[in-house]
Amino acid sequence: MDFKRDGGNGSGPADYKLPEFSVPGFKASGVVAGIKKNGRKDLALILSDVPASAAALFTTNKVKAAPVLLGIERIKKGVSRGVVVNSGNANACTGKDGMKVALAMTSAVERALDLKKGDILVSSTGVIGVPLPCEKVEAAIPSLIEGLSYNGLGPATEAIMTTDAFPKSAVREIKIGPKTVTIGGIAKGAGMICPNMATLLSYFLTDAKIKAPLLKKALKIAVDASFNSILVDNDTSTNDTSMIFANGVSGVEIKDGTPGYRAFLKALSEVSISLAQMIVRDGEGATRFLEISVKGAASDKDAKKGARTVAESQLVKTAFFGGDPNWGRILAALGRAGIALKEEKVSIAFNGIEVVRNGLDTNRETEAADAIKTRDVAVEINLKSGKGSARLWTTDLSYEYVKINSAYRT
Amino acid sequence: MDFKRDGGNGSGPADYKLPEFSVPGFKASGVVAGIKKNGRKDLALILSDVPASAAALFTTNKVKAAPVLLGIERIKKGVSRGVVVNSGNANACTGKDGMKVALAMTSAVERALDLKKGDILVSSTGVIGVPLPCEKVEAAIPSLIEGLSYNGLGPATEAIMTTDAFPKSAVREIKIGPKTVTIGGIAKGAGMICPNMATLLSYFLTDAKIKAPLLKKALKIAVDASFNSILVDNDTSTNDTSMIFANGVSGVEIKDGTPGYRAFLKALSEVSISLAQMIVRDGEGATRFLEISVKGAASDKDAKKGARTVAESQLVKTAFFGGDPNWGRILAALGRAGIALKEEKVSIAFNGIEVVRNGLDTNRETEAADAIKTRDVAVEINLKSGKGSARLWTTDLSYEYVKINSAYRT
Repeated sequence: MDFKRDGGNGSGPADYKLPEFSVPGFKASGVVAGIKKNGRKDLALILSDVPASAAALFTTNKVKAAPVLLGIERIKKGVSRGVVVNSGNANACTGKDGMKVALAMTSAVERALDLKKGDILVSSTGVIGVPLPCEKVEAAIPSLIEGLSYNGLGPATEAIMTTDAFPKSAVREIKIGPKTVTIGGIAKGAGMICPNMATLLSYFLTDAKIKAPLLKKALKIAVDASFNSILVDNDTSTNDTSMIFANGVSGVEIKDGTPGYRAFLKALSEVSISLAQMIVRDGEGATRFLEISVKGAASDKDAKKGARTVAESQLVKTAFFGGDPNWGRILAALGRAGIALKEEKVSIAFNGIEVVRNGLDTNRETEAADAIKTRDVAVEINLKSGKGSARLWTTDLSYEYVKINSAYRT
Repeated sequence: MDFKRDGGNGSGPADYKLPEFSVPGFKASGVVAGIKKNGRKDLALILSDVPASAAALFTTNKVKAAPVLLGIERIKKGVSRGVVVNSGNANACTGKDGMKVALAMTSAVERALDLKKGDILVSSTGVIGVPLPCEKVEAAIPSLIEGLSYNGLGPATEAIMTTDAFPKSAVREIKIGPKTVTIGGIAKGAGMICPNMATLLSYFLTDAKIKAPLLKKALKIAVDASFNSILVDNDTSTNDTSMIFANGVSGVEIKDGTPGYRAFLKALSEVSISLAQMIVRDGEGATRFLEISVKGAASDKDAKKGARTVAESQLVKTAFFGGDPNWGRILAALGRAGIALKEEKVSIAFNGIEVVRNGLDTNRETEAADAIKTRDVAVEINLKSGKGSARLWTTDLSYEYVKINSAYRT
């Protein structure tokens, strides 16, 4: 079963600590600016030693936070020195004043570092509709810059957290010829707590040399396979952002269509999937990590739609919480997914135990109930109607109201 | 504020009892057949003294339960004597055997009452994918029929409940000329517990004389304004069914385009909205009943889409649970609803207190926080982009994980 996919840095309690890796040519820092009321770190800076190729993907929400609107403009030139990020306040729904604050944040960093206007990007995450106290950010800039270090990704990762129970980071090194290229990533966001507003922020850093358009192409592929394949993605927030910076200090150039690009893309996707899965695992009260895979769909689009409808089904998720191999709920979710479906062809397996074949019970529920007593559960659905496939990740639902549902059958 | 809309039989604890009304010419009954494991009533029969015009609306789920498939066929002739309903087992995902059981249930009633094959409809609600024990139903038919009474809607309503905390019923009487027409309804279903699988069953009974096509037209309008305007509707189950029976014993004929039809439609809609609102109020753990209305949308469709996205937003609902007039979450939900929207035009009011005007804070949050300390909260959204409007009903979210979210801002 191709299931344990967290990869090197994303599969257990060992990762629930701050990142210790660094990416050559990138410094970072994280400090307390006093935006968060709990006194925790809330201001981060990631800075490349040299101008880096840069690409970004932003929320598709029509209501976009000021830092997103600014980022959309600034990323156009494809070059950046880095990004300043605050947590505790999203600077969203804050009108023209919000845009002034976003600009002021970048200007303060640019001035302090003697950079050009536009060299620095900005992100914000936290409460919406409340003015972001610009003076607190500006007052913290000196200590933020003083703290810059090649080992600074730890405090930076801590400073971007909001409702996260643990920090998220992952790194890969790839050999291209005799040289090593590093691809690191940090992220914030927590599954299930705020399924429709959990701002996802992720920042990828690499010392590869790669032009901005190709960097954007790679970022898009990696994000589709990761952040767009976890449940939270369904509801894009006002602030969702993924950025990648490639500073080239490894001296290795990555060109489209080469084995180097494929290796780079694979590593970037692994880092991204690892981060996305950590966000799912950070689901409040989650007791299980579910991989929903659909094959045999009429198209990949149908497969994704089917997988998403199953993953979003509260009844499916409550059944898994209750340890109930309730395939009827999965079949019902598929039925309302708006996809090509023949009930009498559908097969469903839980951790390899086929519970439904051709739409009917295989009477292996006891066996299946035993098989899903694991933290990670693979749900494999075969629609036998085509060649479309998709895979995504979500959690069970373990909250109080769920108990009522999970007890319904038993 | 046009908000308190429960009407005569649907607005308080006084209704949390079994219906005591009857509709002339209809008998009903409810007994224990032993399908539910808790020993409660689980088999109901509603029977018209004479053949009644009949219409029905069924789930749009591609996976349809056997009783639904049978109902789709039988309702075509537009005449029926009544319906037998079991709870505790949905007879869904049960293949050809399931269809045999659905047929056997109707045959048993038809035989016992000396009716023609096809005179009786059937519904089932409960667990999916498990064979419905036909022998238990057949064994209970004699007592079911023996129990038939003009005052039998009480036990019948009790027998169709599953996760419902209370039974749902409503009735209206209208004067048409010198005569009285009665329109009664019973329903089962509970909001929020199973937002994607809460089977909704509703049965409307009237002594009006009305032809089947007009009856269907009226049913569709009433259901759109009620069951299709509460949150649970978004996810149609394998068994959702609304049926209406018009036996004509009042001697009052209702014809299209007449004042009588308009009075009938108004009363039917009121009964239906009342039942739908009771389903929302039956939301597990719900502490608030929310009416979301959107006006000024580019179209009614946009308005409904916007209202639905707000109503489905767990963050909006958690904010209401926490008593937090968090308009930013509403604006963010509207932004991802996929509708025409200009952030700088949007206004939002909570129980009459305008918290956002033209996309910006009015600084009336303290006032608004006081105003929403009520059980019923009206959320009024004006997009100022057209003439489209919509209104729907949902609840807050009060579960454990919600506490974390509702505390986020405070």
